[in-house]
Amino acid sequence: MTNLSLVPFREFERLKDLDITPETHTELFATYCRINTLYMIKQAGSGHIGSSFSSLDIVCWLFLNELRVRKTNSNQPRDIYFSSKGHDVPGFYSVLIGHGLLEFERIHSLRRLDGLPGHPDISIPLLETNTGSLGMGVSKAKGMISANRLMGREGNVYILTGDGELQEGQFWESLQPAANLGFHEMTVIVDHNKIQSDTWVSQVSDLGDLERKFAAYGWYVERCDGNDVKALGNAIAKLKAVTNQPKILIADTIKGKGISFMEHTAIRPEDNLYHFHSGAPDDEAYTTGVAELIAAANTQLEQVGASPLALEMLSYAKPAVADGAQRLVSAYSKALVTQAERNQDLVVLDADLMLDCGLIPFKDKFPKRFFECGIAEQDMVSQAGGMALKGLLPIVHSFACFLSTRPNEQIYNNATERTKIIYVGSLAGLLPGGPGHSHQSVRDISALGAIPNMVMIEPANEAEVSLALDYCLHRTISSCYIRLVSIPCQIPYQLPEDYQLELGQGIALTEGQDAILFGYGPVLLPQAYQAAQLLAQNHGITLKVVNLPWLNFVDLDWLEQILQGYSWVFTLDNHYVIGGQGDRIVSGLAELGLSGQIQVRQFGVFDIPKCGQNQEVLRAHGLDAESLAFEINKTMM
Amino acid sequence: MTNLSLVPFREFERLKDLDITPETHTELFATYCRINTLYMIKQAGSGHIGSSFSSLDIVCWLFLNELRVRKTNSNQPRDIYFSSKGHDVPGFYSVLIGHGLLEFERIHSLRRLDGLPGHPDISIPLLETNTGSLGMGVSKAKGMISANRLMGREGNVYILTGDGELQEGQFWESLQPAANLGFHEMTVIVDHNKIQSDTWVSQVSDLGDLERKFAAYGWYVERCDGNDVKALGNAIAKLKAVTNQPKILIADTIKGKGISFMEHTAIRPEDNLYHFHSGAPDDEAYTTGVAELIAAANTQLEQVGASPLALEMLSYAKPAVADGAQRLVSAYSKALVTQAERNQDLVVLDADLMLDCGLIPFKDKFPKRFFECGIAEQDMVSQAGGMALKGLLPIVHSFACFLSTRPNEQIYNNATERTKIIYVGSLAGLLPGGPGHSHQSVRDISALGAIPNMVMIEPANEAEVSLALDYCLHRTISSCYIRLVSIPCQIPYQLPEDYQLELGQGIALTEGQDAILFGYGPVLLPQAYQAAQLLAQNHGITLKVVNLPWLNFVDLDWLEQILQGYSWVFTLDNHYVIGGQGDRIVSGLAELGLSGQIQVRQFGVFDIPKCGQNQEVLRAHGLDAESLAFEINKTMM
Repeated sequence: MTNLSLVPFREFERLKDLDITPETHTELFATYCRINTLYMIKQAGSGHIGSSFSSLDIVCWLFLNELRVRKTNSNQPRDIYFSSKGHDVPGFYSVLIGHGLLEFERIHSLRRLDGLPGHPDISIPLLETNTGSLGMGVSKAKGMISANRLMGREGNVYILTGDGELQEGQFWESLQPAANLGFHEMTVIVDHNKIQSDTWVSQVSDLGDLERKFAAYGWYVERCDGNDVKALGNAIAKLKAVTNQPKILIADTIKGKGISFMEHTAIRPEDNLYHFHSGAPDDEAYTTGVAELIAAANTQLEQVGASPLALEMLSYAKPAVADGAQRLVSAYSKALVTQAERNQDLVVLDADLMLDCGLIPFKDKFPKRFFECGIAEQDMVSQAGGMALKGLLPIVHSFACFLSTRPNEQIYNNATERTKIIYVGSLAGLLPGGPGHSHQSVRDISALGAIPNMVMIEPANEAEVSLALDYCLHRTISSCYIRLVSIPCQIPYQLPEDYQLELGQGIALTEGQDAILFGYGPVLLPQAYQAAQLLAQNHGITLKVVNLPWLNFVDLDWLEQILQGYSWVFTLDNHYVIGGQGDRIVSGLAELGLSGQIQVRQFGVFDIPKCGQNQEVLRAHGLDAESLAFEINKTMM
Repeated sequence: MTNLSLVPFREFERLKDLDITPETHTELFATYCRINTLYMIKQAGSGHIGSSFSSLDIVCWLFLNELRVRKTNSNQPRDIYFSSKGHDVPGFYSVLIGHGLLEFERIHSLRRLDGLPGHPDISIPLLETNTGSLGMGVSKAKGMISANRLMGREGNVYILTGDGELQEGQFWESLQPAANLGFHEMTVIVDHNKIQSDTWVSQVSDLGDLERKFAAYGWYVERCDGNDVKALGNAIAKLKAVTNQPKILIADTIKGKGISFMEHTAIRPEDNLYHFHSGAPDDEAYTTGVAELIAAANTQLEQVGASPLALEMLSYAKPAVADGAQRLVSAYSKALVTQAERNQDLVVLDADLMLDCGLIPFKDKFPKRFFECGIAEQDMVSQAGGMALKGLLPIVHSFACFLSTRPNEQIYNNATERTKIIYVGSLAGLLPGGPGHSHQSVRDISALGAIPNMVMIEPANEAEVSLALDYCLHRTISSCYIRLVSIPCQIPYQLPEDYQLELGQGIALTEGQDAILFGYGPVLLPQAYQAAQLLAQNHGITLKVVNLPWLNFVDLDWLEQILQGYSWVFTLDNHYVIGGQGDRIVSGLAELGLSGQIQVRQFGVFDIPKCGQNQEVLRAHGLDAESLAFEINKTMM
């Protein structure tokens, strides 16, 4: 049990009545927001502290001193602010809440169902656009400005970007036309906190001379200390005076600003990684950190002759995590090193997710064969294409949501060369539910599944991970896509000791005569497994649950055989139903023509994924064991 | 009947024996290549003259004077050259043929089945990578250089890019890391011919100060007249002396260089478009143009005391085009203007394909509501997202192959905002077969079909085009994707006068009791229609052909009703079978559970599309009327 501290709304209100400068007001407001952001992330169990903290002085300055976001009538100019990187949204929520622009009670709902999403979503007031997929901000803003101009509306648009985000091609693609069209309404602020997901931007993929670049694109450029509100105010005043071109402010900030040991400047030389990019602080880090923030606020309050903060306290207990969860990314990490030892041509490409994709052991062991590409998925995939043409066997990594879509055309281009490339998409599927729809990859099978000679496979437990990688490397000449779930999973089934992958074939996890269900992966197969138990206990229905790891191909002979005697078939996709594995099973059934006595129902995702805790999200989409058992029973009645 | 001229191989060989400077040799070689390129394109009926001609002096200089492409043993350095833009490949083929690096006889096979593809494909010797999807070149080259470094091989890599191509974000995404890694092996040559697909680069989406930009990215920059071989030689010599950074040569060229009236400098001020980007010249333009080239060659030969060119002559007759073909893009063009007159919020976005997408009438009538985005599909789609958020109704255009894949993540991001945006992808499907797989869009339904609230529709004739646009604008709140075939189509069926679109429902084009076939669009429905006639005549099988314009949704009640009495169901996709419309029909069948007596076969594309003439390509994929009739009869036997 830990005590969490919260700055109540009345404390934000009290600031207004103090006789202080706008700068002091902003600094105190920002510190309050840091306290509340830390609360939200600790309570949610995940979130992005580092970016929220680096950007809070900027956001608070804008909302307290610059922006015209509330209109009293439709003829007034209205300014727009949004963050293109998006993962700083907990900090932004705290600003909206501190301003009374968002109900205070929502502070308890970060990353909960119907709460405040893990990345921006326009369902929340003053969230102007959905971000979290990087590099789209300037383009979106250009569209908004074009609409304003066409409709005769006035107002400025401020876009906050990350620095790692500037590795995305779309950002650069979007710059020149804004200058050509004289989009003076636009101000980009780069939250240049020097650290991207894994580590230093300069190490991952250095940005070069940013000022020189922006100027070469025809933008007006300023630079200042982005955690110094006075400097920010001065810089923004200069930018506002420029009325014939788009403007950019490079705000040099400190990632994790406000808590000494979370500040990136505290990274020790021997540390490879920055530890407060995502995730929640542990109890000790929380307690020490929040104490620093409170002390800073009280010191400043004292200096202006005000009484100390009156905080709200809430107790918090971390949800227990059961032992024995399987971690497929860790299993992949080990399997990759093992395979790399045997195969000299195997090289690894990464897009700033080496920790999350399990690549650090490989990198440490084979540094020359590790290619860090930064947040530049298109460049990464086409580089892999060039490598494959010249004799290497590239394995390309990112989150599934990004890897399957941002370089979609590049993957197809590689496929038309019939070289062999392995793509590994982690964070696959509906869970974790916390980050929200930009990160919930439920469209990757459909986005890539039609590509000829592309074997797609999702392992159902740790053991199947190494079999999958071995299959992709040694048992097919096709390119491959390995779909990896990233959350730890409790897995109630085992695969036989002598289990081997056979293309298009699966294996039964439970026996049952009344119906058969095909699924894959460590998130939904356990739900199906439990559903089978529930169906047996409550309805006397026995369900055969089959692990079919192949996502875009089914062996028809095997299918015909395993279906003998079944008239009820269920498919279960951790993916949209359209374009998922279920479509391949149904297609196989239709081709076999043995549909004689067979009725099928396809389970999966139908609408944009909801954000929330994992079990909440499964339930909301009807994919938890209870919902599945209920629906299967109802269908068969 | 026209006479076509060809420079035979012996004339290229004769050049070697003349006592001339390398510059004169290169100039003559390039002129010969222009004559042969013009032949190839005229004979093929399509191809890119403008880019081939602007780049030929560069390519000839490289191949005659710089590149080490032939290795005598594996330890020798080998240089790599490829064109990132790719559509200049007819010119490149002519260089390879003139060098004897490609059999001369292949000169007659441009854009023919098993011939020389319309865009680069590595199945052809010395084609180093598949291009035609723009902006990937530097990334691919980086991969090749990394492979060379890792494997201890030496050699330089020369990449030719377009200038319009530089609007693509991936190009800029790929630049900085090349500088960071000191990729001195790399030389990019920008064929800066000032004209992109439709018109002037500066009008479409100006590139700004290119030299300043490249330098800001840490590249070494030279600039020269790219049609002056002496200047090219000097510039390349300077670049070769730079050994610590990647290098870029801005080669100022003339699009269509070599034939006076094809040169972009001949565009009259009142002309909006450049007419020799793609397509074949008419007989008069061919005859006048080739005469200029021959005269130029002979003048130069005379100056060096050599006898004139001994050309081969071939006669050519343009294939007759039947009257009455329907042009869906023209129909769309008209419907768009009509709708725009009624709807003030409707705006149009284009990615440098305003002619091919039928947008010029709209642009002329509503210039303020027309947004030319250049070859920057990601930026275009996200701009549309911003516009939709602020009250406009954007209609976004490009070729289907690009629109569905390059901005795939951006389209999904927009969809998560639940705004309404209409995407129109032309050049959809397997045909035209000439451009090759980079342009044959047989993956767009799968790439976008899973997105919730995305209505996808393909009209089957001109009449259905305007109904489709009207449906998308007025009868749904969903976003939409309209899939448009671009080739003129002979359409043997009509839709009833009172025909209306109903979501998920189709309409029978033929009556038949023995089997039912579902399809869509003006390319394959006519094939199915003819197949029905063949089946009736030859096999006594009557086939009901149904036009189902909805690509990712089927109305189950309608499906159940229309299927009554049929035990053979065929689906027909102008798309890969995986993820096409057939999957939705099969899924509907399975859900209905009326599969009792039903057997299904899904027709469509299974492998990477072949390049060739339209009828050749249909036949090669088994999708022409005869193949369909044969397979349907065989299946039902």
